Amino acid sequence: MPIITLTTDFGIQDGFVGVMKGIILGIAPEVQIVDLSHQIAPQNVLQGARLLRRHTRYFPAGTVHIGVVDPGVGTARRAMAARIGNQRYVGPDNGLFGPLIQDGRAAGDPVEIVHLNNPAYWLKSVSRTFHGRDLFAPVGAHLAAGVALQALGTPLEDPVLPDLPAPVQTGQGWRAQITGVDVFGNLATSLPADLLPGSTLVESSLKVQLKGVEISGLAASYGARPMGELIALIDSEGYLEVAVVNGSAALRLGAAVGDEVLVLV
Amino acid sequence: MPIITLTTDFGIQDGFVGVMKGIILGIAPEVQIVDLSHQIAPQNVLQGARLLRRHTRYFPAGTVHIGVVDPGVGTARRAMAARIGNQRYVGPDNGLFGPLIQDGRAAGDPVEIVHLNNPAYWLKSVSRTFHGRDLFAPVGAHLAAGVALQALGTPLEDPVLPDLPAPVQTGQGWRAQITGVDVFGNLATSLPADLLPGSTLVESSLKVQLKGVEISGLAASYGARPMGELIALIDSEGYLEVAVVNGSAALRLGAAVGDEVLVLV
Amino acid sequence: MPIITLTTDFGIQDGFVGVMKGIILGIAPEVQIVDLSHQIAPQNVLQGARLLRRHTRYFPAGTVHIGVVDPGVGTARRAMAARIGNQRYVGPDNGLFGPLIQDGRAAGDPVEIVHLNNPAYWLKSVSRTFHGRDLFAPVGAHLAAGVALQALGTPLEDPVLPDLPAPVQTGQGWRAQITGVDVFGNLATSLPADLLPGSTLVESSLKVQLKGVEISGLAASYGARPMGELIALIDSEGYLEVAVVNGSAALRLGAAVGDEVLVLV
Repeated sequence: MPIITLTTDFGIQDGFVGVMKGIILGIAPEVQIVDLSHQIAPQNVLQGARLLRRHTRYFPAGTVHIGVVDPGVGTARRAMAARIGNQRYVGPDNGLFGPLIQDGRAAGDPVEIVHLNNPAYWLKSVSRTFHGRDLFAPVGAHLAAGVALQALGTPLEDPVLPDLPAPVQTGQGWRAQITGVDVFGNLATSLPADLLPGSTLVESSLKVQLKGVEISGLAASYGARPMGELIALIDSEGYLEVAVVNGSAALRLGAAVGDEVLVLV
Repeated sequence: MPIITLTTDFGIQDGFVGVMKGIILGIAPEVQIVDLSHQIAPQNVLQGARLLRRHTRYFPAGTVHIGVVDPGVGTARRAMAARIGNQRYVGPDNGLFGPLIQDGRAAGDPVEIVHLNNPAYWLKSVSRTFHGRDLFAPVGAHLAAGVALQALGTPLEDPVLPDLPAPVQTGQGWRAQITGVDVFGNLATSLPADLLPGSTLVESSLKVQLKGVEISGLAASYGARPMGELIALIDSEGYLEVAVVNGSAALRLGAAVGDEVLVLV
Repeated sequence: MPIITLTTDFGIQDGFVGVMKGIILGIAPEVQIVDLSHQIAPQNVLQGARLLRRHTRYFPAGTVHIGVVDPGVGTARRAMAARIGNQRYVGPDNGLFGPLIQDGRAAGDPVEIVHLNNPAYWLKSVSRTFHGRDLFAPVGAHLAAGVALQALGTPLEDPVLPDLPAPVQTGQGWRAQITGVDVFGNLATSLPADLLPGSTLVESSLKVQLKGVEISGLAASYGARPMGELIALIDSEGYLEVAVVNGSAALRLGAAVGDEVLVLV
């Protein structure tokens, strides 16, 4: 039985996630359910999209990832399910799975998308405000239980795709962005390490500028430098990251998602 | 094997919930455990009662819902287990399951309650401060594993029932209350939509007054109105709700549980 | 199939815990995964160690406890796995499992520790910043799936052991410390009840002094005293605790981990 993961902006206080699990387990009693995050900022589709893009490829083939960050619930926005490579996705067609679709298409992976317009796999009564419970949970459970993607609806050819800011080459290097701030206050950027020259870990001339400060060189790991030092390093996804050893770079620099990061190579 | 759900005010920092799961899985290794919420405000029995009433009916028949919001732990307050309709409940007899008992009785559903006074199904050593681990977790696990409700204790005929404020009919409509504030800042009220006249979604003359503001008419969904607009709508449980599109009505209005809501129909 | 528990300082926002579960379930699909806590304060190894010591003995024999509070990730700090009594542990060798090792040795329980230096059980590519995903999750899953502890690496004889402050006997009683503050604001101390004289629950002459206040006697439970009263009692682990009935002793007293507690017996 495949795994189902859940990614939402529902928080963990109100039971919205738990009731989705009740629906899922009623349809697919043997499924393993994994919470990816329920702390996406309310209605922040882009944050959810980045989290799904980062983590879902680590799951076993056939996993069903249900994502619900859905400011358009109850409007004409479409609901969708997709197969991208060997993973499957269920949620609103609002860009939440857009980066994964773009990556899959760019890599030549199989990408199939359907518009969830077959109510046979929904709860009998669908509210206008909680499609996580009434539509996405049952559809995801049926998909995990063996229902074919094509049975869930008709092909959807024009999914909503976000316009993610790509790093821009400058005369001296790259102009990138902060794309995420994690619980430690580490700052993820949009710059993949493979755009950096040569053996980056010993590239002493590399400089990282953001929020009025400059960092020289790359650290091998957090613990390679003294506590409290501001460092740049390559994160576990292969992107440039800015951190403070045993501290918070976000607090130190007052940095937030969208802030500019310049790299001089 | 049935599902066990957990609803507590234990938070997620201290491991109190995890250790309950260790006890449960030692007794019922195949059970699926679902967290409903561990963010009930400390000792807020009524908040826990409302959450259990809202969500538990979506679970498969036979699910065992363990609830622990228990300011009287270690005193003479009784511990209880119950069958209400096709769901089962385990926790303190302090009103936490009261609304479910009242609803079940009103609907003519089977309601059976026992006083948990058979220590054969508890941990050997029961602390005075953590019955979640020492009493409710093992009892819930045994119940899920097939032990009969009647084996857990003697009949309990007079459970503690809360006195929930019902909406009051006025000359012009209804006087209700805010009963919950969810993670988005949406305000749940005590007024069920079926008390409202006719086709409520197009009832333009309906007005909702609270905290010195008035809202005209009902929105079909959050996304049906412009971002930032204060709206009234029917929530996913069929109750009147007040919300701000992509924002927080609780913050906008300074509203909290217990505040009065007037509806003019 | 054994249980795997997870204890980290990863928080629940960023998906770091979810992706560990994806790795685990890819290796051991039938395992039950239990979250102990992901709210350990960042890099606070001692807090994680206390939580693991408190809760893990309640789990069924053979449970694998993965702990990741790991400021030294990517440096020369060793990774370890251990069997202590009938439980198993996987994580960094930085003191996180030190109190459990000390307790196990003191009790004469079997204690076997290996240095995780066999990459056959890691992900193929190991990042320098996320050993939770790349090393500890797969090793823990293989251990749960039946791989022998000795296959994971070579014996480790000198694990890092913390220097936990023990209660000190004074002329009038004991000098102890606050060791934890739970979600309710209850204050755990380092003083085990079995160091207190006789029938402690009725020992009226016992006095507890901290933060400039004095508490006389021990309460039987929270609910045994009026709401708002500052009390001392024996907690569910058998240690002296200071609490406020239906309130927060941490807020009332401005108390924190490390503050001194004097007991006059």
